Formats: sequence, C-alpha cells, structure tokens
Amino acid sequence: MANSKYEYVRSFEQPDNLLPNTFIVVRLDGRGFTKLTAKYNFEKPNDRRALDLMNEAAVAVMRDLPDLVLAYGQSDEFSFVFYKDCTLFERRASKLVTTIVSTFTANYVFGWAQHFPDTPLTAPLPSFDGRAVCYPSPTNLRDYLSWRQADCHINNLYNTTFWALVLKGGLDNRVAEKELSGTVSADKNEILFKRFGINYNNEPEIFKKGSVLYRDGRPVQMSKTQQEKERKKRGKAKIVVEHVDLIGDSFWERRPWILSGRAG
Amino acid sequence: MANSKYEYVRSFEQPDNLLPNTFIVVRLDGRGFTKLTAKYNFEKPNDRRALDLMNEAAVAVMRDLPDLVLAYGQSDEFSFVFYKDCTLFERRASKLVTTIVSTFTANYVFGWAQHFPDTPLTAPLPSFDGRAVCYPSPTNLRDYLSWRQADCHINNLYNTTFWALVLKGGLDNRVAEKELSGTVSADKNEILFKRFGINYNNEPEIFKKGSVLYRDGRPVQMSKTQQEKERKKRGKAKIVVEHVDLIGDSFWERRPWILSGRAG
Amino acid sequence: MANSKYEYVRSFEQPDNLLPNTFIVVRLDGRGFTKLTAKYNFEKPNDRRALDLMNEAAVAVMRDLPDLVLAYGQSDEFSFVFYKDCTLFERRASKLVTTIVSTFTANYVFGWAQHFPDTPLTAPLPSFDGRAVCYPSPTNLRDYLSWRQADCHINNLYNTTFWALVLKGGLDNRVAEKELSGTVSADKNEILFKRFGINYNNEPEIFKKGSVLYRDGRPVQMSKTQQEKERKKRGKAKIVVEHVDLIGDSFWERRPWILSGRAG
Amino acid sequence: MANSKYEYVRSFEQPDNLLPNTFIVVRLDGRGFTKLTAKYNFEKPNDRRALDLMNEAAVAVMRDLPDLVLAYGQSDEFSFVFYKDCTLFERRASKLVTTIVSTFTANYVFGWAQHFPDTPLTAPLPSFDGRAVCYPSPTNLRDYLSWRQADCHINNLYNTTFWALVLKGGLDNRVAEKELSGTVSADKNEILFKRFGINYNNEPEIFKKGSVLYRDGRPVQMSKTQQEKERKKRGKAKIVVEHVDLIGDSFWERRPWILSGRAG
Repeated sequence: MANSKYEYVRSFEQPDNLLPNTFIVVRLDGRGFTKLTAKYNFEKPNDRRALDLMNEAAVAVMRDLPDLVLAYGQSDEFSFVFYKDCTLFERRASKLVTTIVSTFTANYVFGWAQHFPDTPLTAPLPSFDGRAVCYPSPTNLRDYLSWRQADCHINNLYNTTFWALVLKGGLDNRVAEKELSGTVSADKNEILFKRFGINYNNEPEIFKKGSVLYRDGRPVQMSKTQQEKERKKRGKAKIVVEHVDLIGDSFWERRPWILSGRAG
Repeated sequence: MANSKYEYVRSFEQPDNLLPNTFIVVRLDGRGFTKLTAKYNFEKPNDRRALDLMNEAAVAVMRDLPDLVLAYGQSDEFSFVFYKDCTLFERRASKLVTTIVSTFTANYVFGWAQHFPDTPLTAPLPSFDGRAVCYPSPTNLRDYLSWRQADCHINNLYNTTFWALVLKGGLDNRVAEKELSGTVSADKNEILFKRFGINYNNEPEIFKKGSVLYRDGRPVQMSKTQQEKERKKRGKAKIVVEHVDLIGDSFWERRPWILSGRAG
Repeated sequence: MANSKYEYVRSFEQPDNLLPNTFIVVRLDGRGFTKLTAKYNFEKPNDRRALDLMNEAAVAVMRDLPDLVLAYGQSDEFSFVFYKDCTLFERRASKLVTTIVSTFTANYVFGWAQHFPDTPLTAPLPSFDGRAVCYPSPTNLRDYLSWRQADCHINNLYNTTFWALVLKGGLDNRVAEKELSGTVSADKNEILFKRFGINYNNEPEIFKKGSVLYRDGRPVQMSKTQQEKERKKRGKAKIVVEHVDLIGDSFWERRPWILSGRAG
Repeated sequence: MANSKYEYVRSFEQPDNLLPNTFIVVRLDGRGFTKLTAKYNFEKPNDRRALDLMNEAAVAVMRDLPDLVLAYGQSDEFSFVFYKDCTLFERRASKLVTTIVSTFTANYVFGWAQHFPDTPLTAPLPSFDGRAVCYPSPTNLRDYLSWRQADCHINNLYNTTFWALVLKGGLDNRVAEKELSGTVSADKNEILFKRFGINYNNEPEIFKKGSVLYRDGRPVQMSKTQQEKERKKRGKAKIVVEHVDLIGDSFWERRPWILSGRAG
C-alpha cells in the first residue's frame, strides 16, 4: 500500500473504553442557548415548542440506539442512560458520545421548521456538546437523575416567578432578580399565588418535572441467541414520553428491569 | 439547595484533558454512509453535491472555532486540526469532539436541501461519529494528513476503475471486483485509459486529492493582550477550500505558521 | 520564585483518579521470578520460606494502609483490595499502586535475610510491578478473587505433579512436560497417588489455596467524626493470614462488611 | 479451564499506554521523609550519606532499564527520563512507574546498612511513590528538569541559611523561620557570609545542583537488527553521576543524542 508508511500514526489513538458493569450516562447540553433563545424569541419561562423539539430529537436517538434504557430531558439538556451490561461500540466513550450528540443534533435541526414554522434557522445553527459518565450502582444512577430533576424543579420555580414578576408584574429584570435574591421555595410559591394568582402545583408537568423517555413493555428473559432478535425488537418498541417523578421509588419499583442492568 | 444531597454524583465525572503542546486532530466519519449513498442515489464513484455539502459543513465548523488551523476532508470523513498551543475548553476531549461533530452535523442536515433539492431527507437522518487524537510533532501531524490523503488517492483510483468497469463496461459488480483483485495502480491506470479512454490524471482534483481548508492570510506575531482580538479576527478570516497536495513539502513551506503551533 | 517560569510543566501531569464507589484492586507480580527462583535455589514445587516472606511483606502493606480490607497472595503475586468507599490519595491510581508496590518491595528485601539466611541477596535485587483495576460490584470482586484462587489451584496441581515426576520419578523436565500435556485434574491426582503415594488433598493449604489476609474483628457502624479514630484503630488491628477458600459463599457470609464497601 | 468462567474480570483492566513520541518522565518521592530524617538523625541541612544512597539506588534503576537516558535527583526525589522513542512495556504507565519505584526501593533498603551502619532500619521502612508525565518537546523536557534543579537551588539556599541560624547562630527554629520570611536570595547569601563566614558558592555541588545521571559514551547510529545488541550494550555502559548545571545550554549541546529521542 502506498500509505503504509504513514499508518504508524494510528498508534497515537488512545483507547477510551468505559469500565464494564456500570451505567453509562451521556448528557448533552445546548451550546450558547441563552443567545439562541433570544435570537428565536423563545417564550418565557418555558417554550413548549422548544421542549417538544428536544423530546422529538431524543426519541430519535433512543430509536437509533436500542441499548439505551432511559433518557431524561429538561431545558436545553438531555441525559441518555445505557443498560449496565451494554457493550455497544466496545463502550468507547468518544464513539458513544458523538453518536448520540450527532443523532440528536441532526433531528433537532431537521425538526425545527415544523416546531418553529415562523422563525427559520439561520447561521450559526444550534449545536450541542456532551460527555459520558459512569455510575457503578443503581443508587448512583438514581441520584444522578434525581440531581437533574431537582435542578429542573429549582430552576423552573425560579424562572416561573421571575418571569411573572417581569411579564405580569412589570418589573425590570434587575429588580425582579433582586427581589428573588435570598428567597426560598415557599417565598416563591407565595409570590406566585398572592401577587399573580398562580398555583405553582397547577403548572404543566413537563415544566415542573422535565421529560422521561423509556421503552414501552417489559423485556423478557432470554437466551444468548435470542438477544440479537430482542435488540431489534427493542429498537421497534414504542418510546414513551412522560413527565413523571424520578426521585421517589414508585417509578423504579414498577420497572425493575431498568436498574437490573440487563439489556433483555 | 434541594438538590445538594445528590450533587456528589458530579465526582464521578472523569477528566479527559488532552496533553498540552500537541496537535489535536478530531476526525469525524459518516455513520452507515454505504446505506445512505444507496438510499439517496449518490452518483458513482463520487457525488460532487455530497462533497460540496461536506465542505460547506466543514467551513461552518472552522468559522465557529477559530482555534482550528486546518481541516482535511475526503469521502464521508473530515479531520480538523487545532493549533498546538490551543487551550480551548481546557483541551477536554469530549467537549472538543462533540462541539465539532454537532456543528458539522447541524450544517450537513441544514444544507442538504440546497445540494439535494430532489431527494429530501427522511429518517434515519445522516449522522457522524468522531474521536480526538494527539500528535506531538509536526512530522507526526503531516504523516497523519499524508495517511488520509494517500487513502483518498488509493480509494479513488480503485472506485474510478471499478465504476468504469460496471457503468461503462457493463460488468457485474462481482466480476468487476474480481478483475481488480490483485491489481496495482499502474494496472488500474491502464484499464481506465485503454478500455475507457480515461486519463486518471485529468480527473477532478477534488476527487483525487480531497479538500484542504485553511484560513486566508498569515497571522501576525502579537502580544498576549492582542490575542483575544486576533482570535476574533481569525474567526472572521476567509476560509479557503483547495484540492492540493499535502504529502510534499510545498504546501507547508509556504504556510510555516500552521506547524509552528502558535495560534497567533 | 526563580523557578516560576518553569512551573507550567506541571500542567502536563494528567489526572488518574479512579472511578468512585468501586472496589480498587492493586495486583503486584514478581519481575523475572523464574530466574530469581533458580538463582536462589527455591524449593520445588513450592518454597515455604518464599511464601512466608511474601506474606510478611503483605502484612506490612496492610498495616501501612488501613484502607485495605483484604489481600490475597499466591506464588509471586499479591492482590490488595481497598474498601469501595475508599478516598485515600483521592483514588489516584499511580499513587495507590506505587505506595503498595514500594512498601511491599521494601519489606521483601528487608525481610529476606531472616527467611533465607544462607543465600544473601545480590544484584539485581528482587522487584515487583503492579497495576490497579476497578470492580464495580461485589460479584465482580469475588469473581476476581476466585479467578486468582482457581489459578493458584490449577498451577499448584500441575507443579506438584510435574516436580513429583521429575524429582521423585527421575524424569527429564521435557519428558515430564510431555506426559502432563493434555491431562485433566483427575489424571494428575491419579499420577500423584498411584505413582508417588501422594494424596493431593493432604498437601498444605497454603500451597493449594494461597493466603488470605484481613483484619481481625468486625468494624462497628460509626459517625463521621468517629471515622478517623476508627481508621487509626483499624491500622492497629491484628492482621490475620489464613489459607481458606474464597470461591464459596462461606468466607463472605461471615464477614459481610468486606463487600459492604464501608470502611467503618 | 476451571477458572475460565472468572476470566471475564480481565476485561475490567483499562489500558494506560502513554502517548508515543513524547519523553516519559517518572518522578518518585520519599513517603513521609520528614519523619524519617528525624528518626534516623539525618544531618542538616544535607546528609551526604542519604544522597549517596539515593544516587546508588538510581544507578541501579538505570542499569536495570537501558531505555532510560537520564536521571536527576535531589533531596528525597528522583526523576527518570525515557528516550522519546522508547517502547518498553508498550509504554504502559503503571508498568513503567512501578518497575522504577520497586527497583529503586529495593536498592535503597538493601544499600541502607552500608551508608548508615550505625542506625539500622526498623519498621515502618522507607518507601517511595511515583507518577509518569509525558513531555512532547525537548524544550518541555528541559523546562521540567530546570524546574526541579531550580527547586533544588532554592530549597538548598533556604535550608543552608536556616540551619546555619539554628545550629551555628543558636536560634530557635521558629525564630529562624521568621527571620527568613520574606527574604530573597541576596539576603540569604549575605546572612550566610556576614554572620557565619559561609560563601554559598563554595558549598558542595551535590547540594547546590543535585545529581545528574547518564550513560557514558555517545550511542552510534545503527540498523534495526543492531538495536537489540545496542540495548544490551547500553545496559552495560558505565553510568556517570555528576553535579552539573542542566538549566543552561552547555550540558545539552555536548550530548545532542539525549534530546534527539533516539534510543541508539
């Protein structure tokens, strides 16, 4: 081969296989989305169209990668969870992360026009970065997801109150910010209710809880030879999008196969 | 904070900062592009529209990331080279790779309709995976790029001959494959010339050499305080797309700042 | 500082912290011990003095590092297991591995004269290499230790039979090797019993099972503030050396705190 | 094999091969040597016996590993430099580091009695930890060594002055510390000269510069087949211990093969 004398450069590639028998979580985040939400006039505090587009892109990722068992999204971020015994791409971090980020981005850009028919995309286009993290135990994984969902709640309560003060209360951004400085949850709930008649509990679940994606139907126990078949079947299973609590036990007790770490 | 008891999960994130003072190369590859080229009827052996779209997406990546000094693309792959002293994202591998892959994908999907007006995209959408590799010396970096460009040449000569045998010679795919088995470059050149009157040397440079992207104009030496300004200026510099030889010395001798590893 | 302009070189150090909440196993192996056993005339198939010296060095390592919960040794290798929640040296791999290997080596060399009074050490001195591996689950850890103990058994049965054939049967090394080629355990047991009157079951446990080291006494549940005290106390606890089975459940059921992953 | 069902645990070992074409530096440091110097009554500010023992252990390491091109030691630390094109142990970090640390420790403990005949070792024994760092360019490597040698100078000037104040000036440790707080080099030189008649320049080079170890004689250019022979020859070459300046150009200009990165 004419290029054989250059092939030694392959030896500079360093392996990045992730530790076996751990849950791999890939989280992606929108790059510069503060600017982007301003550019395309996203509704405040939440733009339902944008969340639907995020979810649509995430569903496409789960459809593409049957080894994913769960995904959780809020705001401009999404976390994807692989089965604990997943061996996709020999668990190479860069391959797993880029495949998810690229598939997500492709679907986000492709789906934009349908969700934002009046504000076509212009350069620079939306993009996402991502990373992979391993969690050894079911508790670690649940704590990770609780962390993201608690974050969703805290931010959403803040944002809902902030934008009520600004949009309905007529306050200047800085004044609203100052007013909220040092308040706890109860204070914000009271501001919403007393000043604006908003009962935070009645806010849409998608805003308060974010979105949980998983496959419909319990996988069955099966032999090695059945697994590839099952993998394909899983790829075709309906993907459910719900806005449910992940912090308590209920979700997990009903779907024990998620934490069991077995793909089938 | 309500989520503080979960925050320990951040300690599971493992750093992936790449070794300083080395050239970082991020290469991305189309996922399942054999299927994709069939699905959208790409012309054989090369589809100029597809290559133009690849280059357009790569130009957008270089515009987005002024720390990139060079890019090289062929077929469904693209390699992006960062300055040796680049400190973008603290040189975190996953951040660098996903930013490039996501930006590239966004522009590829967004630009599709213009380059393929008659074959609109349908699911599953095109996507790319990627990885980062460090090269310590200018020689290593040049050998990497020579490896990719030699690969381009070898594949293109093969494909040009193969598709001439099939499309012009009327051979069955397998028969053509068999005929080419064991042949060297000279044999293929002869087949092309004697049977089909094709002088391989006259084939388009973009097919034979691939595409080289770099910024127009030599960066000037500057002080620390000037560097951020320069970085912005660099972001605005025109990006040149050429189909030139990277294996010989000429390209490099004319642009010594590329291998010098200094961003400004 | 006069050396401040050079200090940037510290940025080239790359972090190697091991994933939290996993069992860290550090295994060390004798370097070139085949040569060494010949040089110092180790007894065949096992030299009790050498094994006692290995165990003595391992006890010193466990005394030095209270975060170690278990150690297993056989032949010229030793595996050390850290508590799952261990945070010693921020779990930096190189620090953990070199500390163990250095402490082990120091004690091996220091203790040599007492165990081998007639064959003093000469250059090159005995040395060991080592590596760290993470095991996420108790099952993975037990399987690792079962792997080493099964390896001990297999090698010891082979060596016992081989050296019986050579030393008692008068066979040439190669002839003995050939005779054992393709035999299973039952065959070797039969050779030992029929030809040499050796009942393998009656061989010393230290040869058949290797050596298991752990601290005497069950650690008690305690508060955060008690933990440092406990760590010191642990450091003073007597270290037990036993030659017991690790493959079955019995050892583990009696000492549940080992797999619980809690240091205290 | 009886242990085959456990062998999957090997897949948990993660590769740690270091980037090719970079200088690998392994630095080891004494563990808890402040305590140790007190325990064995090391002379202040420098104990020549201890430094000689360090150098002896380092010579043994260089003899054991012909791929080492240079070593630099001061106080209780030693840095070992591998040729840039070294492929020993496939450049696995843990293997390289533990081999050096173990060999060094073995020789330190073994040689103790000769250098400290009046103070025999007792538990806990001296031990060392270590780590590997890659330096891509000759400049980076030289800056690393300059950093260590400048550190040696700064510490030695401080310590020489401090112990003069304490041992000759009769000051209390704290008073001496306070007196030196905020002083620059010129101040310390003056204290030494005016109060104690000590000209720092006349202090022994081993204290001021540390110790540089390298092989005697320039390696010759050779063919692939000669390299293994040469490697052995190198192993037998005399190792020189000098106390010379590494910060200036002179040392390097006379021995260009060190930075050339070629083992032979």
